[in-house]
Amino acid sequence: SVNPDLASERQTASFSVEKLTALLDGGAEQTRIRRAVVEAIESDPVFSRENQYFQTQNERYEAAVRKAVHLQKKMHEMGWTENGPEYKYIYRALSGDVAFLLHRVFMRSISVLGSDKQIATWIPLATQHKLIGSYAQTELGHGTYLQGLETTAVFDTATQEFILNTPKISAMKWWPGDMGRSATHTVVFAQLYIHGKCYGIHPFIVQIRSLQDHSLCPGITAGDIGPKMNFEHIDNGYLLLKNVRIPRENMLSKFCEVRPDGTYVRQGSQKINYFTMTTVRISLISDEVLTPLMKACTIAIRYSVVRRQSKLKPGEQEAKILDYQTQQEKLLPQLAAAYAFHFTNDYLQELFNRGYREIQKKNFDMLPELHALSSGFKAVITQHCTAGVEICLRACGGHGYSLLSGLPSLYTKILASCIYEGENTILLLQTARFLIKCFMAASAGQPVPPSVTYLAAVKHRKCPAKNKLDFLSPDIYTEAYQHVAVRLTSSTAAKLQDLIQSGVKKHDAWNQCTVQLVQAAKAHCHYIAVKNFAETVEKLETKAGIQKIMKHLCDLFALHGMFSNTGAFLHDGYASAAQMDMVTASYLDLLAVIRKDAVPLVDAFDFTDQSLNSALGSYDGQVYQRLYEWAQKSPTNQMSPAYERYLKPLLHNTLSKL
Amino acid sequence: SVNPDLASERQTASFSVEKLTALLDGGAEQTRIRRAVVEAIESDPVFSRENQYFQTQNERYEAAVRKAVHLQKKMHEMGWTENGPEYKYIYRALSGDVAFLLHRVFMRSISVLGSDKQIATWIPLATQHKLIGSYAQTELGHGTYLQGLETTAVFDTATQEFILNTPKISAMKWWPGDMGRSATHTVVFAQLYIHGKCYGIHPFIVQIRSLQDHSLCPGITAGDIGPKMNFEHIDNGYLLLKNVRIPRENMLSKFCEVRPDGTYVRQGSQKINYFTMTTVRISLISDEVLTPLMKACTIAIRYSVVRRQSKLKPGEQEAKILDYQTQQEKLLPQLAAAYAFHFTNDYLQELFNRGYREIQKKNFDMLPELHALSSGFKAVITQHCTAGVEICLRACGGHGYSLLSGLPSLYTKILASCIYEGENTILLLQTARFLIKCFMAASAGQPVPPSVTYLAAVKHRKCPAKNKLDFLSPDIYTEAYQHVAVRLTSSTAAKLQDLIQSGVKKHDAWNQCTVQLVQAAKAHCHYIAVKNFAETVEKLETKAGIQKIMKHLCDLFALHGMFSNTGAFLHDGYASAAQMDMVTASYLDLLAVIRKDAVPLVDAFDFTDQSLNSALGSYDGQVYQRLYEWAQKSPTNQMSPAYERYLKPLLHNTLSKL
Repeated sequence: SVNPDLASERQTASFSVEKLTALLDGGAEQTRIRRAVVEAIESDPVFSRENQYFQTQNERYEAAVRKAVHLQKKMHEMGWTENGPEYKYIYRALSGDVAFLLHRVFMRSISVLGSDKQIATWIPLATQHKLIGSYAQTELGHGTYLQGLETTAVFDTATQEFILNTPKISAMKWWPGDMGRSATHTVVFAQLYIHGKCYGIHPFIVQIRSLQDHSLCPGITAGDIGPKMNFEHIDNGYLLLKNVRIPRENMLSKFCEVRPDGTYVRQGSQKINYFTMTTVRISLISDEVLTPLMKACTIAIRYSVVRRQSKLKPGEQEAKILDYQTQQEKLLPQLAAAYAFHFTNDYLQELFNRGYREIQKKNFDMLPELHALSSGFKAVITQHCTAGVEICLRACGGHGYSLLSGLPSLYTKILASCIYEGENTILLLQTARFLIKCFMAASAGQPVPPSVTYLAAVKHRKCPAKNKLDFLSPDIYTEAYQHVAVRLTSSTAAKLQDLIQSGVKKHDAWNQCTVQLVQAAKAHCHYIAVKNFAETVEKLETKAGIQKIMKHLCDLFALHGMFSNTGAFLHDGYASAAQMDMVTASYLDLLAVIRKDAVPLVDAFDFTDQSLNSALGSYDGQVYQRLYEWAQKSPTNQMSPAYERYLKPLLHNTLSKL
Repeated sequence: SVNPDLASERQTASFSVEKLTALLDGGAEQTRIRRAVVEAIESDPVFSRENQYFQTQNERYEAAVRKAVHLQKKMHEMGWTENGPEYKYIYRALSGDVAFLLHRVFMRSISVLGSDKQIATWIPLATQHKLIGSYAQTELGHGTYLQGLETTAVFDTATQEFILNTPKISAMKWWPGDMGRSATHTVVFAQLYIHGKCYGIHPFIVQIRSLQDHSLCPGITAGDIGPKMNFEHIDNGYLLLKNVRIPRENMLSKFCEVRPDGTYVRQGSQKINYFTMTTVRISLISDEVLTPLMKACTIAIRYSVVRRQSKLKPGEQEAKILDYQTQQEKLLPQLAAAYAFHFTNDYLQELFNRGYREIQKKNFDMLPELHALSSGFKAVITQHCTAGVEICLRACGGHGYSLLSGLPSLYTKILASCIYEGENTILLLQTARFLIKCFMAASAGQPVPPSVTYLAAVKHRKCPAKNKLDFLSPDIYTEAYQHVAVRLTSSTAAKLQDLIQSGVKKHDAWNQCTVQLVQAAKAHCHYIAVKNFAETVEKLETKAGIQKIMKHLCDLFALHGMFSNTGAFLHDGYASAAQMDMVTASYLDLLAVIRKDAVPLVDAFDFTDQSLNSALGSYDGQVYQRLYEWAQKSPTNQMSPAYERYLKPLLHNTLSKL
């Protein structure tokens, strides 16, 4: 039975939840396929996450391996293939709680970086799981700056082998998933040396554990890096190499080859490598970032209509906490952001697909723009969504702090997305570098990529809004965001030039501008996200109330950003204080409007109770009952030796006399 | 041996670290006493936290109980008493990793709420640990709003007993520490009923477990609420009461008594109760909030001078990451905030002591101000410091995400401070209520408490700064903060009045203003923090470079707040865009200045390696070595059954055929 406080929220939906779900999925047929996958996964007890919050790191790892192995069988049974339409839903249905994710990266890196012969040799072995692969790039002392990696691979012409070493402790490979306990092989990135000359970083396939008994190979020291904030199910590992010899054929050689005599040959274009990072950054947005925020919104919003606390009106019963303006102000902007970035993700995917087609035609022109957008949005979206999940957690008070709410694990996991696949600040600075370059080019009348043509159109006009309703016009707020992005880019470019002209060295000048460059990059991404959301809404069908509610969310996303950062719009007088007060008024009005549809808007994300795994967020809203039932199953409700050992002697005064 | 990259940072300190430590401690003698306590605790292996990051919740609980019991012995051995000068350092030295904290709250509540007879009966039993107490107020369905508690205590004149019940699942007591597994007794807050009439919430001493064998008493269901984001060492519990009978004497009756015939008698002033919450909110700031932020700053800043990544100048070695402006901009404002709030805490303590003296003279006049300040600052400081710890964690990249860095546990623990002892938004609204009331009074020419007299002095002048150096003048920035606090309070008061005058009901109008009321309350606290820091710096001795460096930190604290929230200062034209650009310039300049003293500034916090418990933050900066050593000890580096069960059959292709 559904909690009546939750049921009543669903009766007044202004739109069709099912239609919105289909829109999010990309069509009703996709919804059907997704649900079939979810059903198959969730009805299989091997994939259960029921006791997850009670398990140790060791237990989580073991379960993830069990699931990964079972998944092979399941896919066969169900007729699912890696190229089939179901594939993209499997990981989501498992909530990522599965091992061997790096095995896939191992395979991809061979496919992308290996010669045809290497692909023919290794890919079948990997596909059939005759080996388990990992990907060893990051070192204890080196993450972002790949040129700084210290692992070496010295070519020995005599034996036709590479000799691999991690010469210092900081050179130790550190963090690779699946490597701590599972992998038999890995792709090691190392500085290639031939006849004493360094040729830079190259990838090498290295066997690290015996295929017979899983013992470490000679010269290999490896293990698990220990407890982390989350990812208990993954055996992130360390790897020391001491004079490990591998055959010449193990250097992945699509782009570079070492001939038997030690001649180094570079072949083909490495630009495609660049593209790989882009792929990864875009692909993680949906599964690793948007899904957790959508789950957190679902949990926090459902809980907020079931939780009653204090009185809004004297004499009435206690109010649903979502009826408090402050609670709306915490949660509804996160909901709007989840939708906004869902559409940003669609935009990036489309751009990426177009780029991919061009690259296949050997046209690499789109790469810089794609790189800048994927870097910037990876940073902006992970940052925004991480903050959003944390807000959802805090908005649930004490119960949000219980692991049983599901929110702590969503938070601790999404937080990692700000760090992996490029640290966010560094990514934003890459976007900023692109912006500055394009701004200079545009100022000089040169052509620039489509997403930055707006930088040339510097308008010094003022915001034309006359009343608070004007701020519900996408033209008004999109232009405001554009104005800020142009201003921040152009003023930082000017500062940079001034510094250089005053004699400051280029790299010092750059460093002295980085705080502001980061602001410019964020403003650029924010502008594109707002613009894209507005354009998407424009194109939606007007039926079933979908366009109307999406328009509200788009307005909220835009106005929340303005309300939270008024200085950016006030700075050069683009908007007046009176206009910013209109923004505030419209923003607060919108909260009350969207609040009415809050539950249907999270229902549309269509998460099952199993995938939410939350005592606060279930579809039926029976929060207190579920918290109590779950808590009773906790291992902390088993007898503790602490009583006999310490409490009893203390209470019975039989401790050695104080 | 100290890492040379860290050692070099200490050679250029512009001030005496030892003198600054003494200043933070409140004198060199306090430093001596603190260090003696730390030494005694840390040299005792029972108090070790060495394996903490590898332990399960059950193990953490057991260790905390062991430590609590051992602490009794230790205090006796060392001659430490609860009233002695050492006492306040013990908890800090243990990093809070000890059980029976609620036992102390149990004792305090009896001391404050009990009659003389009750105190004489229960306090000796508790002191001698003939019982273990807890404090059962919060319910599954009720936290903040005490009047909403659902537990009942019905007086039965026939038997002279109270009959206690938790009539619904939402009435179940939930969260009390020490209650899940340890406590034998607790103070239960329940709605008192006599002859069918409700007299509101009262406290009752209830035995929940046998003193003989620790079994649950008749009518009691109790246990542990399961895993949380942190606080694994505490057995937060649940408690169901079913017709539990306790003698009439067990109602704590300093202020209210039920006579044998059922007559309800109220005696004395309950205002002091109000004061208890204030006490708790102020007392948690130092141990639970400032210490974690200071630890996080210590870890992140030491790591940031040892970690080298990428190149600032072409051709040079990789740069210390603290040399990047973006890294400075993350960490140094957190360091400034740690100092700022340390001095705010001193200010609150002094105010509190003055209030306490007045109350003893039966003068309760200071209570509203004290309540408003303690509520507001509890919220502002917990929020600011929690965000600060998170920034420190993220600023350490991947290694910050490892539990071994110490940062995740600092973060997950400090986060709880935003929720417990009053949810922050609700506390800010209490401060706002006080502000609005005082603003109205001040506008009407009535006297108001000292901290809010500034609200009357509405000046419509403009910021007088003429160049960026003017923003290093405390008068300039303090007045700017004051202006914003007045503006936000007065404009929200005006909105509130307008709404009411336009016919909106008072409670609805209040709710429609709450987002802005929260802003006003924060601005008020921020202003007082800045003003107090500036005044403190003014009074410092100029010797040994202390005043100079504190002045820099004060400037940074103030300018960071302006830089991060430019709209507040630009809004009504108080500051111009050109002036805000000067703020930015001064702020960025300051980062480079303070960066030089960053390591000495965290050294002055004087944390031992044991208390930091961090592979990244140790005094010697041997980061990589320590990460590797610690990881090897992880239980995840033991043999996993996953190999024999799943990996071997997979690799050997002996799984049942796919």
